[in-house]
Amino acid sequence: MYFEDYEVGQTSRFGAYEVTESEIKEFASKYDPQFFHLDNEAAKDSLFGGLCASGWHTSAIFMRMLIDNLPEDHGSLGSPGVDKLKWLKPVFPGYVLSVKALVTDCRLSLSKPGVGLICMSYEIVNQHDECVMSLDSNAFMKCKKR
Amino acid sequence: MYFEDYEVGQTSRFGAYEVTESEIKEFASKYDPQFFHLDNEAAKDSLFGGLCASGWHTSAIFMRMLIDNLPEDHGSLGSPGVDKLKWLKPVFPGYVLSVKALVTDCRLSLSKPGVGLICMSYEIVNQHDECVMSLDSNAFMKCKKR
Repeated sequence: MYFEDYEVGQTSRFGAYEVTESEIKEFASKYDPQFFHLDNEAAKDSLFGGLCASGWHTSAIFMRMLIDNLPEDHGSLGSPGVDKLKWLKPVFPGYVLSVKALVTDCRLSLSKPGVGLICMSYEIVNQHDECVMSLDSNAFMKCKKR
Repeated sequence: MYFEDYEVGQTSRFGAYEVTESEIKEFASKYDPQFFHLDNEAAKDSLFGGLCASGWHTSAIFMRMLIDNLPEDHGSLGSPGVDKLKWLKPVFPGYVLSVKALVTDCRLSLSKPGVGLICMSYEIVNQHDECVMSLDSNAFMKCKKR
């Protein structure tokens, strides 16, 4: 997948990442040690109603699904950032997450020759097709060699 | 720190997180296995000019600094999301990151009694005071008991 392979309006769906309790706690103990990500009992009294993944953990899992979905030969050059990152529903242990992607814009970089910018809108859904997270993201993408 | 302790315009600075090469590779191998986060030699030819941390890793480190900066008695209830998350400069091994925070808005939740929303603008800077990442974030915060 190179810049020229993307078109506005393209959609795709991919990923099947099972979120385990142990992975939720491992990530949280390193990066987001709040009780609703670490303590099953105490989490029942939180706004979320139970132990759930850090939003940053869900974001990292999303990234992994994105990378696993790239073909071996691809032109991805990294991302300058994301917008409107929303954690809409808690991600509980046992959830199987997947990604719905929509291409919203494709444009050539003015400053970097041979590089384009792909704008995407993503929804991360659980096994019941409920959206747990959404974001808009940009990625630099190499153009095909001529 | 509870809802009433925040005021628009308040600033703070905190954190001193040293980013190691081994942590960069460990995070990337799980969540963002792209060559510029894993392979020192190949990364030299990337847009970043060398091995650097995943943007999601820097985001997770930011979260850890945020949590470590909360006093034991606090009213943080989690976040509905962030906006304008920008990865402005690569985060190289050996960087020591810290956070500059600015309170931009404080308002009571209309739907959740006793809960407020604090809006913050953050800059994550390296040891040379260069901004490597910025974002706007909202957090639900308990009000003090009356």
